[in-house]
Amino acid sequence: MAPAFSKSEYESRLARVRAEMAARGLDALVIGDADNINWLTGYDAWSFYTPQMMLVDMHDGPFWMGRLMDAGAASFTTYLTPAQVVPYPENLVQRTDTHPMAYLAEWMAGHGFAKARIGYESDSYFFTPRAFAALCSGLPDASFVDADLLVNWQRLVKSEAELVVMRDAARIAEAAMKTAWDGARPGVRQCDLMADVTATQIRGMPDAGGDMPALHPLILAGEAAKTAHPLWTDARLEDGQTIAFELGACRRRYNVGLARTVHLGTPPDDLRRTAEAVEEGMAAVMASLKSGVVAGDVHAAWQGVLDRYGLEKPSRIGYSIGVGYAPDWGERTLSFRPQEPTVVPENAVVHVILGMWMDDWGMELSETLHVRRDDCLRLCDFPQHVHVVGG
Amino acid sequence: MAPAFSKSEYESRLARVRAEMAARGLDALVIGDADNINWLTGYDAWSFYTPQMMLVDMHDGPFWMGRLMDAGAASFTTYLTPAQVVPYPENLVQRTDTHPMAYLAEWMAGHGFAKARIGYESDSYFFTPRAFAALCSGLPDASFVDADLLVNWQRLVKSEAELVVMRDAARIAEAAMKTAWDGARPGVRQCDLMADVTATQIRGMPDAGGDMPALHPLILAGEAAKTAHPLWTDARLEDGQTIAFELGACRRRYNVGLARTVHLGTPPDDLRRTAEAVEEGMAAVMASLKSGVVAGDVHAAWQGVLDRYGLEKPSRIGYSIGVGYAPDWGERTLSFRPQEPTVVPENAVVHVILGMWMDDWGMELSETLHVRRDDCLRLCDFPQHVHVVGG
Repeated sequence: MAPAFSKSEYESRLARVRAEMAARGLDALVIGDADNINWLTGYDAWSFYTPQMMLVDMHDGPFWMGRLMDAGAASFTTYLTPAQVVPYPENLVQRTDTHPMAYLAEWMAGHGFAKARIGYESDSYFFTPRAFAALCSGLPDASFVDADLLVNWQRLVKSEAELVVMRDAARIAEAAMKTAWDGARPGVRQCDLMADVTATQIRGMPDAGGDMPALHPLILAGEAAKTAHPLWTDARLEDGQTIAFELGACRRRYNVGLARTVHLGTPPDDLRRTAEAVEEGMAAVMASLKSGVVAGDVHAAWQGVLDRYGLEKPSRIGYSIGVGYAPDWGERTLSFRPQEPTVVPENAVVHVILGMWMDDWGMELSETLHVRRDDCLRLCDFPQHVHVVGG
Repeated sequence: MAPAFSKSEYESRLARVRAEMAARGLDALVIGDADNINWLTGYDAWSFYTPQMMLVDMHDGPFWMGRLMDAGAASFTTYLTPAQVVPYPENLVQRTDTHPMAYLAEWMAGHGFAKARIGYESDSYFFTPRAFAALCSGLPDASFVDADLLVNWQRLVKSEAELVVMRDAARIAEAAMKTAWDGARPGVRQCDLMADVTATQIRGMPDAGGDMPALHPLILAGEAAKTAHPLWTDARLEDGQTIAFELGACRRRYNVGLARTVHLGTPPDDLRRTAEAVEEGMAAVMASLKSGVVAGDVHAAWQGVLDRYGLEKPSRIGYSIGVGYAPDWGERTLSFRPQEPTVVPENAVVHVILGMWMDDWGMELSETLHVRRDDCLRLCDFPQHVHVVGG
């Protein structure tokens, strides 16, 4: 077993993070986001359900800090040396009288961080108010600076090595969606269909196995499709239902998203019309998306089509995508929405998802797009139209 | 579509939470833990990757508070009235200049909570330091009290309706483990085997479909088994490998855990001996586990066996299990470990997992156990021995 990427790939990522730390005057950075920990070092385990963090300094680190039983994963998923792996004892897990972060703060105090200026992630999934409080009270002479998304923004531009992995994920995503299209018919239980879809995602390709995608595979059938993230049930698919699938795939923790819509029976007029708007909107988005474009302008291209059809969509239409564990595959940085001033760089990879959640039905169309100098490229090759079954 | 349980079941849960709130002098409770939100109301969607909370008051609530595109799920997964659903606008998602919790704090200030004594969850997965800070600064005259795990502790004792669902999950867990035992052989890719296992978990039974378990299905093969939570790769299983599977299943968000071990080839002596200790240890744990027992005494029963074999295990051997989304199926309350003073109540359900992660191999044996007045009952009926393939 070996890390997902070469040592020099990880060194280049670390250098980018340290450059940004230096620009902000930080001596150290505490990362709670499991996605960021993986991106920076390759560390890969389902270990983030107990406190886990990564300490980035300017010279000797980064240091993985987590539960003793999970420390071993560093030896075969990262290039970290034993000195860079700092486990806390098992008897600190899930206690009310003490917290693992208190132990790690003490370690930091004894290793040169007592008076450091330390950045932290204020709004990541797995770094809690109590963890932060324990860190602060264990390092009373340090200063803490909000550095949320510092690492996430470094992830925006993909290397060629990352693109190779994401293209593999895209092939798996195509296979998963084909499983959904082939299996959707009246009478099939949602769970049976999604069992096949998920198995396709995990099996992957003969030369590239799949990981579990960070976003739970979604089936939005009938009434449930009026909302964006319903979970499958054991209800049977019904004639007349419009069914949106938000699937995608994951390879070496890199996610690619792919959403499509199926209709069982004869498509009603409002579906036909909405689908036409959405396909036209996707074409407008893709025509506008290339390096150097402002994110808000990409949204405007979509809004122009939507206005012409007299439709509304209050939510953003896309975001940067990449490394991710549950619950999300988005990078939480770039969003495509009105007036968003972020300039889209070359080699960003974004998931543009046109989800229309109406009063009692819904549909989706998405593409994962590689932003290039003068255009953008779909990572998945899959028909965009609404797939009609027995209509 | 309908909520997972009857209205009276949810009312009884709410009454228990409110009684505990009253005992602690709380006017309100802010819940960030997606598991707790589901347990209290049935709310079920993959919506917790953007800020989401539940506000419990003494009279009119609870109130689901989350993103507009996810509000619709309340109408078919809960008994909440429209007045109990408080969405925040889509344009607040993932911004640096504002936070959804600031909007929700403003709503609370205008609805009688401006000077309330408010409990909050300090150490749950999806309630961040920034979310908490936004809540505090938006409600400057309120007082905030750490009420972490208040709801979790109410979940410890299961109702008969919950036990019925968990027994269904246990049948699915048996099927998933059988898929692993039947499919494990040299040359099979880990991802191919786990694709079949996961499909079995999701397909469930003809009368009870499966959900995605909260804990990622784990295969610990060969060297990776020296650590507790490695993730599958596309490596092929090899002759001579000891392979631990930590699987389980999930039904209507209720999880049951099940871990077993397979060896490909002739089992080495250290595996035989460790397996003997672990099976004997499980018997000792089960003999000691019944209502009224102290959790530390259950651990002592295990430790006695372990000492006799001269083996060591620094980590806890079990925890309360139930409702859960990723990343964990444990309830983060009861733990079986040395000196733990918690008294185990009747109708608790616990996952006792005896994981032995050695220098370069590992094994696991677990049972999900229903604690009864005078004994405990295994929810899964599956052989405990190490399954030998081609030995």
